[in-house]
Amino acid sequence: MAENRMMSLAALIKARDAGKADPELMVALSRDAIARKDPDIGAFAHVSPDPAIGRQGPLAGIALGIKDIFDTFDQPTGYGSPAYEGHRPRTDAAIVDLARRQGATIIGKTVTTEFAFLNPAATVNPHNPAHTPGGSSSGSAAAVAAGMIPAATGTQTGGSVIRPASYCGIAGYKPSYRLLPITGIKSFAPTLDTVGLFAAGIADVALLAALLTGRNLGAGPDDAPADPSKIRVGLYRCDLLEDADPDMRAALSKAADKAADAGFDVGEIGEPEAMAMARGAHADIQNYEAGLACGPDLALFGDQMSAILSGTIRHGQTITPDSYDAARKLAKRGRAAARALFGEVDILLTPSAPGAAPLGLGSTGDPRFNKLWTLMGTPAVNIPGFRDPGGLPLGIQAVARFGCDRALLSAAVSLERAFQD
Amino acid sequence: MAENRMMSLAALIKARDAGKADPELMVALSRDAIARKDPDIGAFAHVSPDPAIGRQGPLAGIALGIKDIFDTFDQPTGYGSPAYEGHRPRTDAAIVDLARRQGATIIGKTVTTEFAFLNPAATVNPHNPAHTPGGSSSGSAAAVAAGMIPAATGTQTGGSVIRPASYCGIAGYKPSYRLLPITGIKSFAPTLDTVGLFAAGIADVALLAALLTGRNLGAGPDDAPADPSKIRVGLYRCDLLEDADPDMRAALSKAADKAADAGFDVGEIGEPEAMAMARGAHADIQNYEAGLACGPDLALFGDQMSAILSGTIRHGQTITPDSYDAARKLAKRGRAAARALFGEVDILLTPSAPGAAPLGLGSTGDPRFNKLWTLMGTPAVNIPGFRDPGGLPLGIQAVARFGCDRALLSAAVSLERAFQD
Repeated sequence: MAENRMMSLAALIKARDAGKADPELMVALSRDAIARKDPDIGAFAHVSPDPAIGRQGPLAGIALGIKDIFDTFDQPTGYGSPAYEGHRPRTDAAIVDLARRQGATIIGKTVTTEFAFLNPAATVNPHNPAHTPGGSSSGSAAAVAAGMIPAATGTQTGGSVIRPASYCGIAGYKPSYRLLPITGIKSFAPTLDTVGLFAAGIADVALLAALLTGRNLGAGPDDAPADPSKIRVGLYRCDLLEDADPDMRAALSKAADKAADAGFDVGEIGEPEAMAMARGAHADIQNYEAGLACGPDLALFGDQMSAILSGTIRHGQTITPDSYDAARKLAKRGRAAARALFGEVDILLTPSAPGAAPLGLGSTGDPRFNKLWTLMGTPAVNIPGFRDPGGLPLGIQAVARFGCDRALLSAAVSLERAFQD
Repeated sequence: MAENRMMSLAALIKARDAGKADPELMVALSRDAIARKDPDIGAFAHVSPDPAIGRQGPLAGIALGIKDIFDTFDQPTGYGSPAYEGHRPRTDAAIVDLARRQGATIIGKTVTTEFAFLNPAATVNPHNPAHTPGGSSSGSAAAVAAGMIPAATGTQTGGSVIRPASYCGIAGYKPSYRLLPITGIKSFAPTLDTVGLFAAGIADVALLAALLTGRNLGAGPDDAPADPSKIRVGLYRCDLLEDADPDMRAALSKAADKAADAGFDVGEIGEPEAMAMARGAHADIQNYEAGLACGPDLALFGDQMSAILSGTIRHGQTITPDSYDAARKLAKRGRAAARALFGEVDILLTPSAPGAAPLGLGSTGDPRFNKLWTLMGTPAVNIPGFRDPGGLPLGIQAVARFGCDRALLSAAVSLERAFQD
């Protein structure tokens, strides 16, 4: 599908630094691609007619798509909800300001599901418009996958970064909890809401994260790849695997074989009981917090909400503090178990989703393989590379210990290469 | 100072439930008091000309003051900054919605320092208008202390609840981190920003917190007071005590004596080195996060900021991720030390501030006795009761283990009674 050829952020920056592309031209490339492709994809809620083009800084010339759950002072911010149509925040979200300070161009706002929850939006999957791109960061994933922009922001409360990245065949990165700043997003469940990034490949998303944060995230041009024989990769054996599509189970097996072929120390690792229990606690934590965080909207705009959103907020308001505390306790035990597990293994591999993007736009798919890692706060990436017989992408999720984002991204660059061999 | 007689939230609710006061009348009482007193105190940034009066629910008839750092859809929300003058958020902060759902009346917005940081506002101390009421929750503390309203909300990032409560001679409660929802406040440093409450006495603030959250916080009318002989109270011996005013040191000694007289198991407990180190890490954590959270405002409205605010945000943006991570590591070690310490003691007593409210309005006073507990996330209350020779209040801070808010409030009710004997 040549017309979907993606823009590599790393390649664009390299060309710019070599004097082969100037920021103005790089942004024009994205504007043209959006004008040509977005009418068929529907990835953008708003395209800036005259964006301030950054000409200085490490992200000069990089056109960023911003999920429409992040505030922008110069573009409407609708949170995917009719209640916020035409809303203009007074100021930017922190990550938007950070991107501008590094020279990025805020090219537009990408489509989000309503309040970044489950009610689907109209964006289609660039690999097959009859399929969902996933959600809630639907537009960000689709815009990158369709080759309109080199990178975009997302958020994940359940599986809203890793799942759409998997369905769209691109790199998605959910950093360690609060590695990227959360201020200025429409909050849904504050202890879960996590800012993430999309780009064509792992090296692109790692480079973007490094330039935004000033952190060494191990995937810079001068970083030597880690010795794979010293990296313990564990296939994560949890009960959920039985529910995964056969194509996805086959992709996971192939991923393990290819990782072993590439020299990684590959084994299997069972899911600790405490982590399975923690997964079960995600819903109560999310919904209780949504009952508080979105309670003001329910009170004022309930009649403009989808039934699934208003029902979830209402349900959250009936969860007792005791039930919430019990769920938080399970999460805490799960995190302790995860710390212990990451003494035995460096990288866990699991499916990013139960299978390829489901047919139809009536659902954004199932976040069951993602919720646990959001709750654990551990960094996770979607590594693209496999496809089902129909040509739809199948992503493999890699997870590392909390705070070990550098080790994760560095290993994931090598794994991505191995998967594509 | 009879004209400052405070309104007790618990007494108002008791009168209402006994049919002796109706919600309309109760709110009118506050409106009259504000009209009479606020011209001299300056506690309100905005008084609602026609507030929706809650007639149902446990907080029916309770006029709440909302610190002007919390969003309200029906009243201007200025964050103490000229850049946000006349700003009208689309929706309420979560705590405001929670209060409305329990029947509270949002009577007005109380004065905050600029972005809840250090630049003082014009509110005066009701005990002596030549002195600061403290900050950043200046208006909330002053309005309760002056007897205008029975309760108000606040936030604490350094010492913005406990310190003004101490200076104004009222109860201030900083709950365990995230016990009260944070959504819809102007964020300054997300891992520190904590929503708190003010009321006349500990039982009032405990009752309000219980009614807002649906939690049993141990100070309800049917709760038997805990047996003081089973509560280990530790005078917290840290180096900071040497900097406290002699009057405050004397008040702390008296507090210990009175607690012992009341039957508490009183001793002394030294500050673990790891907690002293954690206190030293507060500034880097706060300022790094402010560099991110308030970066968008600096970029757009820097010229409308005080020098201390813009300088702090700018400084925060120069703190490296490595320094921030090192500070977070010290905080983590401090929290582990605090957990161990609360194996030996149930309640720690420390000054709420270095002394009584400083003379003049050029500073809101010093949060040095508060920062550690904000960073630890442990619940803390200001217990009023002592005064300096000039009649200005001196508050004692009680602190308990993270999550043990019920034990803290229940003990603090008894300690407050003991201090006043």
